[in-house]
Amino acid sequence: MQTLSVALGERSYPIHIGAGLLDDARLYAPHVKGRRVAVVTNPVVAPLHLARVQRALEEAGARVLPVLVEDGEQAKGWAGLDRLIDALLAAQFGRDSLIAALGGGVVGDLAGFAAAVYQRGIPFIQLPTTLLAQVDSSVGGKTAINHARGKNMVGAFHQPLAVIADVASLDTLPARELRAGIAEVIKHGFILDLQFVGWLEANIDKLLARERAALEYAVRRSCELKAQVVAADERESGQRAILNFGHTFGHAIEAGVGYGEWLHGEAVGTGMVMAAELSARAGTLSRDDAARVKRLVARAGLPMQGPKLGVERYLELMQVDKKAAAGKVRFVLLDGLGKATLRGDLDEKLVRESIAAAVQ
Amino acid sequence: MQTLSVALGERSYPIHIGAGLLDDARLYAPHVKGRRVAVVTNPVVAPLHLARVQRALEEAGARVLPVLVEDGEQAKGWAGLDRLIDALLAAQFGRDSLIAALGGGVVGDLAGFAAAVYQRGIPFIQLPTTLLAQVDSSVGGKTAINHARGKNMVGAFHQPLAVIADVASLDTLPARELRAGIAEVIKHGFILDLQFVGWLEANIDKLLARERAALEYAVRRSCELKAQVVAADERESGQRAILNFGHTFGHAIEAGVGYGEWLHGEAVGTGMVMAAELSARAGTLSRDDAARVKRLVARAGLPMQGPKLGVERYLELMQVDKKAAAGKVRFVLLDGLGKATLRGDLDEKLVRESIAAAVQ
Repeated sequence: MQTLSVALGERSYPIHIGAGLLDDARLYAPHVKGRRVAVVTNPVVAPLHLARVQRALEEAGARVLPVLVEDGEQAKGWAGLDRLIDALLAAQFGRDSLIAALGGGVVGDLAGFAAAVYQRGIPFIQLPTTLLAQVDSSVGGKTAINHARGKNMVGAFHQPLAVIADVASLDTLPARELRAGIAEVIKHGFILDLQFVGWLEANIDKLLARERAALEYAVRRSCELKAQVVAADERESGQRAILNFGHTFGHAIEAGVGYGEWLHGEAVGTGMVMAAELSARAGTLSRDDAARVKRLVARAGLPMQGPKLGVERYLELMQVDKKAAAGKVRFVLLDGLGKATLRGDLDEKLVRESIAAAVQ
Repeated sequence: MQTLSVALGERSYPIHIGAGLLDDARLYAPHVKGRRVAVVTNPVVAPLHLARVQRALEEAGARVLPVLVEDGEQAKGWAGLDRLIDALLAAQFGRDSLIAALGGGVVGDLAGFAAAVYQRGIPFIQLPTTLLAQVDSSVGGKTAINHARGKNMVGAFHQPLAVIADVASLDTLPARELRAGIAEVIKHGFILDLQFVGWLEANIDKLLARERAALEYAVRRSCELKAQVVAADERESGQRAILNFGHTFGHAIEAGVGYGEWLHGEAVGTGMVMAAELSARAGTLSRDDAARVKRLVARAGLPMQGPKLGVERYLELMQVDKKAAAGKVRFVLLDGLGKATLRGDLDEKLVRESIAAAVQ
C-alpha cells in the first residue's frame, strides 16, 4: 500500500492506493468508529463490493446504512440528490454521521455533493472503484450534479476525510471504462509531466492489460500530479483550471449527445485531440507534439472523432461551460508537451477549425 | 450609518446599518463593479425596492439581472432553487458573477444557497428588508432550503461579501413580520445579554411603533451579539448552537402545521416560551426569570400557545431536527437570564410537560 497526502491545511487528507484495501478495517476505523455511515453505491457496484465494504466498516465500529442510487450519469440530478437526502433523513442521520461513496465518478460526485449540503455539510470518504474516479474525482474535493443546461453546474468544493483506492477493484471494470479512466491519466502527463508521458507511451499496453504494478504506478503518479495543482489552488481561482485540458470540448460533446451517451473520459479523449489541434494552430505546440498527443489517445482506444453536432452547436455548448469568464470562453492549451497554459483571447476561427478537424 | 464587522478571517465581512442605505451606490461599488449581478427578490418586495436597488447597482458599475422567486416559505425548495439556477444559466452567468439577495429570510436563504452551489460557489451580498433577516440571517452565513421531511435540511455555510441593512425598509413591513423579527432580537438578549433584555423591556413599545432610533439600536446590538457567537464557532461545531434557543420547539411547530402557516419568528416566540418552561423545570432558570421571558414574548405580540399537534407529534418532529446528535435531541436552555447552555441529557418527561404547558 502507498499513501499520499493531499496538502490542504486543516482539510488535508490521505489517499491510500493498493490491492485489496476495501477489506481493510484499519483504514476505515479512524474516520467511522462509533458513527452511522451511509454507503452510497449503485446496482452495478453493489454485488461486487458492498458486502465486503459493509463487513470492514462494521469491523471498524460503524453502523452501516446502504443506499442505492441509479447507475449512470442520470443519477446525478435533482431527483437523484433528493432521493439520497430523503433516505438519510428517513433514517434520521444527524450531523455526526458520515457518507461513504462506493463506486465511480457519478457516485462520488453525487454522494460527495449530498455530504456537502446535507444539514449544511457532513463528512465523507471516497471508495473509488473505477480508474477514472481513482485518478480524478478522488483528488480535489469537487462534487456536483448536472443541470439540464449543463454538466456539473450545481456543486461544491467538499474535501473527503480519506480516499481508499483499491486497484484490485479495477479487475472487474468494463474495458470501455478502463479506457475512459486512462484518458485522465494521460491528461495529467500532457499538462504537467513530460517524463510521465514517456512512461505512458512505453506502458500503455500494460495498463490496457490491467497489469497491477503498472496500474498502481499510474494511479499514484496521476494523484500526485493532480494533488500538487489542487494544493496550490483549491477553489480553482486560477491555475487549477489547467486540469480542464480537453474538458471544454469534452463537456460540449457530452451535453450535445445527451449525458450518459459518451463516457466522460471518452469525451475528454476526443476533447484532448481538439485541444491539441487548437494548441498547434495557436502556435503553442509543435505539430510533432500534437501528433504525440493524438497517438497516445488513439493507443488508449479512445474515440478520435467528435459527434456531428455542427460547429455552431459546439460553440454554443461551450459558451455555457462554467469556465467561461464574463461570457468569454477560456481554453487550456498545451505550451509544449508536459506544460499547460490558460488562454481567453483566442481567435474563434482557430476554435472552429480545431473542432472541424476532429469531426468528419 | 453604522458598520460592524463579522470577524471570520479571510471570510470577514461588513454589516452596514442605517436609513436609506439601499440607494447608496458607494456601498455596492467595492463588490459589484464590472460584474454581472442577479438581484433575487419576490413579487412583494420588488415593487417596493427593486427599481432603486437596480439604479444604485448600475451606478456602481454592475450589469443587473432581476430574478423573481415566489413569495413565502414555499419558494425555499428544490423547485424554487432549480428555477433560480436555471435563470442564471439561461443568462450565461459565469463564476465571476454575483447574487444580491433583496428581501427577507426566505430570499436570503434561497439566494444564498444558490450562490453557494452555483458552479460550485459564487459570491453574494445580502440586502435584508425584514427585521428578521436584518438581525438573524444576515449574520453567520447559514443558507438552506427546506425538505419535505424538515426545514433547512439542505444547505451550506456561505458567507456574504457584505450586508446592507436599510432600516427605512422596515417602514413598509407588515406588523406581523415586524413582531416575528422582534422574536430573534429578544432571543439574542435572553441567551447572551441581560442588560439588553432590560433595554428591550424598556423599549419594546418603541420597536413596535417603528421608532427608527430604537430599531437601529436593536438591529446593531443583535448583530453584534450574534457576530460574537459566529466568530467563535463558524460551522456550529459547538457553542453556536445556543443561537437555536427556542428553535427546536419552533421548527417542530413550523413543520407540524406546514411550512408557511406560522412565520419563523412566531414559531420561535412560542418555542422560547416552551424552552423557558423547560429551563425552569430542569432547574437552570428561576420561575421569576422564566416569567420575564414569557412576558416579553407576550408584549412583542408573539403567540404564546403552540398548535394542538399532540405531544407525541412534537417529539417526533424534534427527532429529525438536525441538532439531534446521534439520535438524541439536544436542547438550548437558559442558564439564568442572559446566558445559555446546551443539554443533551434531559428527561423526556420534562420536555413533554413543557410542550403541554404551552398547548391548551
